[in-house]
Amino acid sequence: MSAYKILLLPGDGIGPEISAEAEKVIDFLGRAGVASFEIERGLVGGAAYDVHGVAISEGDMALAQAADAVLLAAVGGPKWDGVPYDVRPEAGLLRLRKDLGLFANLRPAICYPALADASSLKRELVDGLDIMIVRELTGGVYFGEPKEITDLGDGQKRAVDTQVYETYEIERIGRVAFELARKRRNKVTSSEKANVMKSGYLWREVVTALHKREYADVQLEHMLADALAMQLVRWPKQFDVVVTDNLFGDMLSDEAAMLTGSLGMLPSASLGAADANGKRKAMYEPCHGSAPDIAGKGVANPIAMIGSLGMAMRYSFDNPKAADAIDAAISGVLGKGLRTADIKGDAPASISTREMGDAIVAEL
Amino acid sequence: MSAYKILLLPGDGIGPEISAEAEKVIDFLGRAGVASFEIERGLVGGAAYDVHGVAISEGDMALAQAADAVLLAAVGGPKWDGVPYDVRPEAGLLRLRKDLGLFANLRPAICYPALADASSLKRELVDGLDIMIVRELTGGVYFGEPKEITDLGDGQKRAVDTQVYETYEIERIGRVAFELARKRRNKVTSSEKANVMKSGYLWREVVTALHKREYADVQLEHMLADALAMQLVRWPKQFDVVVTDNLFGDMLSDEAAMLTGSLGMLPSASLGAADANGKRKAMYEPCHGSAPDIAGKGVANPIAMIGSLGMAMRYSFDNPKAADAIDAAISGVLGKGLRTADIKGDAPASISTREMGDAIVAEL
Ligand SMILES: CC(C)[C@H](C(=O)O)[C@@H](O)C(=O)O
Ligand SMILES: CC(C)[C@H](C(=O)O)[C@@H](O)C(=O)O
Repeated sequence: MSAYKILLLPGDGIGPEISAEAEKVIDFLGRAGVASFEIERGLVGGAAYDVHGVAISEGDMALAQAADAVLLAAVGGPKWDGVPYDVRPEAGLLRLRKDLGLFANLRPAICYPALADASSLKRELVDGLDIMIVRELTGGVYFGEPKEITDLGDGQKRAVDTQVYETYEIERIGRVAFELARKRRNKVTSSEKANVMKSGYLWREVVTALHKREYADVQLEHMLADALAMQLVRWPKQFDVVVTDNLFGDMLSDEAAMLTGSLGMLPSASLGAADANGKRKAMYEPCHGSAPDIAGKGVANPIAMIGSLGMAMRYSFDNPKAADAIDAAISGVLGKGLRTADIKGDAPASISTREMGDAIVAEL
Repeated sequence: MSAYKILLLPGDGIGPEISAEAEKVIDFLGRAGVASFEIERGLVGGAAYDVHGVAISEGDMALAQAADAVLLAAVGGPKWDGVPYDVRPEAGLLRLRKDLGLFANLRPAICYPALADASSLKRELVDGLDIMIVRELTGGVYFGEPKEITDLGDGQKRAVDTQVYETYEIERIGRVAFELARKRRNKVTSSEKANVMKSGYLWREVVTALHKREYADVQLEHMLADALAMQLVRWPKQFDVVVTDNLFGDMLSDEAAMLTGSLGMLPSASLGAADANGKRKAMYEPCHGSAPDIAGKGVANPIAMIGSLGMAMRYSFDNPKAADAIDAAISGVLGKGLRTADIKGDAPASISTREMGDAIVAEL
């Protein structure tokens, strides 16, 4: 059995704490003979800036390119608010996405039954919720050129960002969405602003043609992004798979995650194209951020990070059984009433980051 | 007393039905001697396309330019799904906004106490909610150039949209937000994606400088648009005035409107710059769309349309008393349990569009 190479990038804020718990689970899976893992460590975000003066070093980029999967916790924090734009913490994350070609970002919005009451929404609207947001991650306004600020004199500046999408980019992300839908409830909602954006117009055209040509068995609907932002609040269970562009996906996936009341719990996967051997570059991260306000206190919730490892087992290590076991262990500890502070709700007491990690390992 | 000129553009779908009810209220205000109004009528959207082959005619644009206020109901519907991009119904709306220079779109998200239970959110989170979203309406990705689709051959196309913001555009919308905040709870939340967009970076810089220079007495916070999409769901009452760009404002205002459970109830105002006499060009519309599925059935809710007239009384006709009276009349009929179908909830029966219009006039 050859070893899977994992690059662990703890990043900033609560990143190191929750990464340590994910490592415990990796160690456990290794000892249990599920697979053999080789862990390397790198720096990203503010942590990389402090050491290397950039948001990710060339050395760590090379490790990321060579890894079977990258596990990233979170980047950013007020400490780096004043650093130059090109080396701000987010730049490390964006470079990883772009250089590894991770065009498909899968963001499940799942409501854990044990936490349904933590949602702002009425319980019946979110209990059992299970949406998969498929966000395009290497195109759109995040990377299009020109992207610049020009000084016009007289105190005036002009800022420009460019949203670009080509047919092949829309097709490949559409394909990911349709394939996922076939394994789920067989419905795809494609979202854009075709009524005001040319990229939205092309998006709709390409998704429609792809559907007709290859996925006519899947139910497809188109919904404008503003309408989707509304419908997520009104009746989230109407959705199965949602496919959308980089910027809309950023907002809609955060909104969807918050609906579940389980934000600290949600993992994500960012996948590249399959090579000749069916292997994909991949990065896994929690949906939540670096939470600088609680960093170092040992109270952060490691579940999204551990769940991200679960997604790695499924999508990178070809081990859906281990992925299911991790998901079951998470549900198990929640079912026992174990809660970190962020999901404490009416529970009598909360446990620490470490205690939660240990409890999940014990459950496994 | 000189007459105020109102251009009424009923548009498509339920537009004509709800416009008729707003007209009743205008007639009533005229008869009651509140002010004297001269109503002209025009076509916009699909209705204009069917007659003129464009989404708004030059004649109606001239009427809009000459009016003291435009009252627009809604545009669009499946009937026009196949029309060329440049003459689609939305193009009429966009041209009105752009040519009249209506850069400031005010979208209140208010939760009517009588309807708090209609929200998907738990009552305590939305009861008494009162947010004002200030959306920039004539810039950004809606109007930036290039905006085009290029055929690359081999079945590939490239679509480009351009987001452009200049300092003065951000300053003038920021000013609207700060001024409004001073009359409300004195807090502005400015939202963009400064971490990935240059226009967001400039936005934050300009709003920060404006605040420091002229509005240091107002509380200002910056929140990334994805975080705001989350926080709106988590704890909407933390917001007072939110100021954001055209595209983010489109999504965030719809999300906020849906939170209230009162979507069919929410008006909006789009305002231009004040001229030497302090007069502004202005257009007023409901936040909701043309609802083609219920068009012509006489069941649509005219409250948002009548509320839009209320906003016209406040912002164009310098008559806050009449505006307050309209708001009070709306609250009054709701307090009496009168409901159109969309807000019926557990009410024993619902009333028609006309009955609701008549009830509001009676209440006035
Ligand atoms: C940190 C930031 C650059 C990033 C994004 O905007 O994509 C984050 O919000 C996310 O959703 O992963
Ligand atoms: C109809 C459409 C062009 C419009 C927009 O995107 O601005 C609408 O969604 C709105 O919010 O007024």
